[in-house]
Amino acid sequence: MNDNKNYKHETSLDRVAGNGLLSRRHLLGLSLAGAGAAVAGNVLGAEAPALSMPAWSRSPGRGPSEYGNPSTFAAGIKRLAPPPNATLPGGGASRTPLHLLQGIITPNSLHFERHHAGVPDIDPAQHRLVINGLVRQPLMFSYEDLLAYPMESRILFLECSGNSGGAAGPTAADTSAGGLHGLLSCAEWTGVRLSTLLDEAGVLPEASWVSSTGADGASLGRSIPLNKALRDVFIALYQNGEPIRPEQGYPMRLFVPGWEGNVSVKWLTQIKLTDMAANFKDETSRYTELLPDGKALQFTFPMGTKSVITSPSGQMTLRRQGIHEITGLAWSGRGAIRRVEVSADGGRSWADAHLEPNQLELALARFRLPWLWEGGPAVLQSRATDSAGNVQPTREVFLNTYSPANRYHFNGIQSWAVSAQGEVKNVYA
Amino acid sequence: MNDNKNYKHETSLDRVAGNGLLSRRHLLGLSLAGAGAAVAGNVLGAEAPALSMPAWSRSPGRGPSEYGNPSTFAAGIKRLAPPPNATLPGGGASRTPLHLLQGIITPNSLHFERHHAGVPDIDPAQHRLVINGLVRQPLMFSYEDLLAYPMESRILFLECSGNSGGAAGPTAADTSAGGLHGLLSCAEWTGVRLSTLLDEAGVLPEASWVSSTGADGASLGRSIPLNKALRDVFIALYQNGEPIRPEQGYPMRLFVPGWEGNVSVKWLTQIKLTDMAANFKDETSRYTELLPDGKALQFTFPMGTKSVITSPSGQMTLRRQGIHEITGLAWSGRGAIRRVEVSADGGRSWADAHLEPNQLELALARFRLPWLWEGGPAVLQSRATDSAGNVQPTREVFLNTYSPANRYHFNGIQSWAVSAQGEVKNVYA
Repeated sequence: MNDNKNYKHETSLDRVAGNGLLSRRHLLGLSLAGAGAAVAGNVLGAEAPALSMPAWSRSPGRGPSEYGNPSTFAAGIKRLAPPPNATLPGGGASRTPLHLLQGIITPNSLHFERHHAGVPDIDPAQHRLVINGLVRQPLMFSYEDLLAYPMESRILFLECSGNSGGAAGPTAADTSAGGLHGLLSCAEWTGVRLSTLLDEAGVLPEASWVSSTGADGASLGRSIPLNKALRDVFIALYQNGEPIRPEQGYPMRLFVPGWEGNVSVKWLTQIKLTDMAANFKDETSRYTELLPDGKALQFTFPMGTKSVITSPSGQMTLRRQGIHEITGLAWSGRGAIRRVEVSADGGRSWADAHLEPNQLELALARFRLPWLWEGGPAVLQSRATDSAGNVQPTREVFLNTYSPANRYHFNGIQSWAVSAQGEVKNVYA
Repeated sequence: MNDNKNYKHETSLDRVAGNGLLSRRHLLGLSLAGAGAAVAGNVLGAEAPALSMPAWSRSPGRGPSEYGNPSTFAAGIKRLAPPPNATLPGGGASRTPLHLLQGIITPNSLHFERHHAGVPDIDPAQHRLVINGLVRQPLMFSYEDLLAYPMESRILFLECSGNSGGAAGPTAADTSAGGLHGLLSCAEWTGVRLSTLLDEAGVLPEASWVSSTGADGASLGRSIPLNKALRDVFIALYQNGEPIRPEQGYPMRLFVPGWEGNVSVKWLTQIKLTDMAANFKDETSRYTELLPDGKALQFTFPMGTKSVITSPSGQMTLRRQGIHEITGLAWSGRGAIRRVEVSADGGRSWADAHLEPNQLELALARFRLPWLWEGGPAVLQSRATDSAGNVQPTREVFLNTYSPANRYHFNGIQSWAVSAQGEVKNVYA
């Protein structure tokens, strides 16, 4: 059904950069059909064809259900997880299949996971959150207590600081967008402002850091400066409307907007006010960036300005010449996304992708641009700019900043090569 | 843990309407703690108490998974559905438990359902969409074909025109916010603009209506005017990022933003351009509003300006006096929500609830307002105003417009009574 060769005879397509990138005005397709360059569609006679009526149209289907599931025909859309019986010292991870999804919201069942001693199964009635240290009045909260507080909701991305670390390695992995960048998700989070609880406890003047600890087997702990904690940090209780999932810290997690995922401590059980960082294991031996001189950066909190093309993606094959939509995600830990550029010729020429106006701060942005693939080789790249003016660096610039061993905070531009056969592959270009 | 009586001695609370409604400035709680009116929190000694370490902190938890599920402790959060073995002529429905959710996004597993011959189990590889009738060139599309088209994503509410119909009945049902208003959900939908496909087919000048038919056993069909179809209607393929669920029309549904849910035909298999409405069964005998004179209104498409308080909700009990957050949802089929007012004294006085700025068009809006419940009876109401200036009517005004038998498009103000014992109940006030 994909006879789409008419474009070869067309001159009205508005090319905006090299190797087939088309104007965003073609996004709605309105001028494509007129130009004879429509994407697909079987041409029929004047009336509907005598299709045989499928079985599902000839009998009633199943009734309503209490908690729905995807179609069995969509069972291939799942997190990229290790085999269920894999030995997982340190807890492991699963990645969001970004190349199979659309929009900016990640459904809860597909939100990425990263944990250091597995997922605890916490009874919320038994769980407690303590706030202590440099406060006038230490406090303890049950889950029920927190549910009674004023809440706020925000759509926010969450990214592991090790995301895309594979793209910093010596050889380009043969993988998909989700395989390479899938420690990244975005949801509407709802919870109680940490400032509300800290105000109740009464922060003492000498306090300048906040350390948080989880109730998991790793007792994972992280420190953040008090000024960030008071600015926009909250205790998340809901994720896309429903209670947060066990993998996300049920019954409660810290949520630190825009900052590396590890500081958004899950299964949160203690918040302690101190006059210095606690220097937890996971902020000294880990989650630091090794520099060329062998020293390490501690406390690189905001995630970098970054974008990834999710379709086409590595491990896909373009099955026809003609117009394809290049689409992907962009985000920044320092503001909203203002611009995403796309290249089809490995960075020699760039065109602005379409972004909806009024992009949210610290959320994913979905970008789109039509691309005419005429059967030749191509190298697809994207480059994000945020509202603070930060521009996503090239891979080379990123690598020159750190030791070759560093795998944290990679935000370099990544390349998908398209072969003349339509095979899409991760490359270093 | 909920000793919260200090408020009785406080004079610094900023009351903005009768019966305990407080200023939105209290929403972050910042002035509450200082006023000694904090919501909850157990007071502790200077150090954390010697809590026994729970079992889940002493051993590793489970590893990552491919498709996650809620905590078993959250199993009570489910759609309000009839028993699995209930006889369901016409297919039935399940409702979103609005009173148990937060934010504006409905997770896919809890999106409301309404179907007329059950949920078909469609193989996308076998499914076809035909566009025919008054077009220059009839076309047929496979699911794969549609996936190759340019897409767009929008966060949009969907509401059954029969939603809240129970609130138009002669006696006030003893039910919850979800039980009464739960044929309402909101998700990020992604799909292909219908205008893109219609442009490819070439709409003939004499076409003025678009009729859509589903592949379910009911072959449900509905007509909409062509100008709406060209304005913002799309064929939804993704819901909160993943392929739409079977209950929502997998593999494809029409999505008609802001209009009654029934016109967003699920399991979409045919779109026919015509010069008049098709007068399908479900737009003549049903989905019309009976008037006092016995005539019926056909084609009431946009959903009314409306709001509901989701917490407190009927069937809840307030377990302590003190400050509670009144929160709920507002929406309009004619624009964005501009204002929501809340009353705690049955409509005698009103206060503006907090809304985030930049509310989305045709999406749910979450409103919040702090309320000091001092143990007396109260009647809670909310009233929405949209960007076109439409104000949600009282129940009485709504009822006077239609026949007493009409149960469609109810958008009157609804009341939760709170007794001195804290019991919350749906009432006609």
